[in-house]
Amino acid sequence: MKHKIGIIGFGTVGRGLTEILINKRDYLRRKYGYKFDIIAVADFKFGNVYNPKGLDVQHMLDMAQAGKKFTRDLVDWDNTRLIRKANATVWCELTFTDLQTGGPAIEHVITALEAGKHVVTSNKGPAALHYPRLKKLADKRGVEFMIEGTVVAGTPVINLATGPMAGCTINGIRGILNGTTNYMLTEMEKGMAYKDVLKIAQEKGYAEADPTGDVEGFDARAKVTILANIVMDAGIGIEEVSCEGITKITPADIEQARKQNKRWKLIGSVVRRGDRVEAFVKPEMIDLSHPLAGVMGATNALTFATDLLGDVTIVGPGAGKTETGFAILTDLLAIHRKRAQHKKSGRKA
Amino acid sequence: MKHKIGIIGFGTVGRGLTEILINKRDYLRRKYGYKFDIIAVADFKFGNVYNPKGLDVQHMLDMAQAGKKFTRDLVDWDNTRLIRKANATVWCELTFTDLQTGGPAIEHVITALEAGKHVVTSNKGPAALHYPRLKKLADKRGVEFMIEGTVVAGTPVINLATGPMAGCTINGIRGILNGTTNYMLTEMEKGMAYKDVLKIAQEKGYAEADPTGDVEGFDARAKVTILANIVMDAGIGIEEVSCEGITKITPADIEQARKQNKRWKLIGSVVRRGDRVEAFVKPEMIDLSHPLAGVMGATNALTFATDLLGDVTIVGPGAGKTETGFAILTDLLAIHRKRAQHKKSGRKA
Repeated sequence: MKHKIGIIGFGTVGRGLTEILINKRDYLRRKYGYKFDIIAVADFKFGNVYNPKGLDVQHMLDMAQAGKKFTRDLVDWDNTRLIRKANATVWCELTFTDLQTGGPAIEHVITALEAGKHVVTSNKGPAALHYPRLKKLADKRGVEFMIEGTVVAGTPVINLATGPMAGCTINGIRGILNGTTNYMLTEMEKGMAYKDVLKIAQEKGYAEADPTGDVEGFDARAKVTILANIVMDAGIGIEEVSCEGITKITPADIEQARKQNKRWKLIGSVVRRGDRVEAFVKPEMIDLSHPLAGVMGATNALTFATDLLGDVTIVGPGAGKTETGFAILTDLLAIHRKRAQHKKSGRKA
Repeated sequence: MKHKIGIIGFGTVGRGLTEILINKRDYLRRKYGYKFDIIAVADFKFGNVYNPKGLDVQHMLDMAQAGKKFTRDLVDWDNTRLIRKANATVWCELTFTDLQTGGPAIEHVITALEAGKHVVTSNKGPAALHYPRLKKLADKRGVEFMIEGTVVAGTPVINLATGPMAGCTINGIRGILNGTTNYMLTEMEKGMAYKDVLKIAQEKGYAEADPTGDVEGFDARAKVTILANIVMDAGIGIEEVSCEGITKITPADIEQARKQNKRWKLIGSVVRRGDRVEAFVKPEMIDLSHPLAGVMGATNALTFATDLLGDVTIVGPGAGKTETGFAILTDLLAIHRKRAQHKKSGRKA
């Protein structure tokens, strides 16, 4: 069985995924029987390309690296038409997140699902704003809508909770979900002021020119919303998640925490209270003995509070080209496993 | 689809599993479409019972709690005959581990697999001594051989590595895999001598009357062997895993570590060196800043070193009635997911 992959957005994640797929082509086929062609790519900067038998992806990586437009297999179809007409079996939506409107990713996702294609995305917009609706649409069309890459890059949290931890009731989630602010807090402990740390984070590429999404906690809020809905069936909207960032934390606050054997962390929380689920993001002073206190720099971590296992904590990378590229691969392989079972069983039936 | 569950060994894990299944019967059906009957139980103390339509498990839990033999649905079949003749679709092998011979669990597992039944086990004997052979047999018969419960109780490590982390190459594993010794080392840091700590651990039920398996590192060695073979395809035998326990650690050693901002941990390691995989167990001084250093008491933890994600660490319970009972449930649900796909696809075909 050969998967026909379409990619929307050939930025960092799209290229990270493509590099992994190329480098691991033999490994994936040998170990998992996973075979694929990348047959379409849509990028507003490099152009839309389509070849039903498979694109020349090395050419595309080279062109993108050089900042030049694609020159082979170009089509003058817009994204909607490409998604509908191309022979993709799965679309990877890897454009930039817009947490205000969810667009244009939301249209891409809906178009693909309605066309009966699986969708894998690292875009927090559709997942944070419309997960319940999109999952319903996917179920109706008999396809998958997979979003591991929207939270903590490829560190498997969603697929861990819904897969190997299925059977446990998850009653709470507490996590360090934003690497930029965690890096900044780590640096501030070394004695630097917020503004200076922000400047360094921007120079290193950890923080964007407009850092609001990270430092005000909006990025963490989107992730908390996604986790609440997918892991704890909360059915909540992002606007119901209260949110406070790290912009008001002063050197005096840092010093106060130190005196109490504590440490500031920006914590995203989801808590089940009876029939209700509450979610919030705020800086908290964490005791140094707590597992989350030791999670420094750009690393992320998340603790699930469960009925059968007590606390289970997972720690891993929260960002990065390869790390987020892998998040897409893990979902592609999950789809493959399900469909391979289909095929195997179809043969037996 | 209704699963017919047989249980061999109605000790702590068997009863833990049974209680979870009873308490979660509605939840499992509603959330995962998982329906089951427990149709056979074999226990050398309580007797062998079989009812093809489902046993009265509450009666059995009550009798076992009171230390009395079962009185209903008794059969005079031995284990082999019960495994062959009962209408189980899956056998849970939950007897005590014997790392010398693997028996009698090994015979139970082989009998069940040869009869075309899935097997789920928490017994380290068959998994540590004969995993490659048993997996091959299972594949040949078209059934599953699942062993999440053999390592770190229900904290999902095997299913995490083979499921959501599939696609990553795992190049190393380092873990705290034995709760008893970790508890003892934690207590020794408070100033107690090895012998006194051992006595308390035995009183609390953490250590057995003959503590050799834990304190000499044999239990950790079995787990390391299992992980090396299932996660890193090592193909190694348990005798190839070098092993040193905690019995020689003195208060002076503890003090020496403290002075260096370190802490003793019994670490199980698997390392890929070129084409070879090496595995060993030994006490190591771990820097206090390392994620494994903060894992105290009976908690277990494990770090996977991967090519695409760097280090991913998971921390959770390493023992316990419910925690290990859940390990069996997670494998039962994994089998259910695969078979539900079969059925779904069968209908479509």
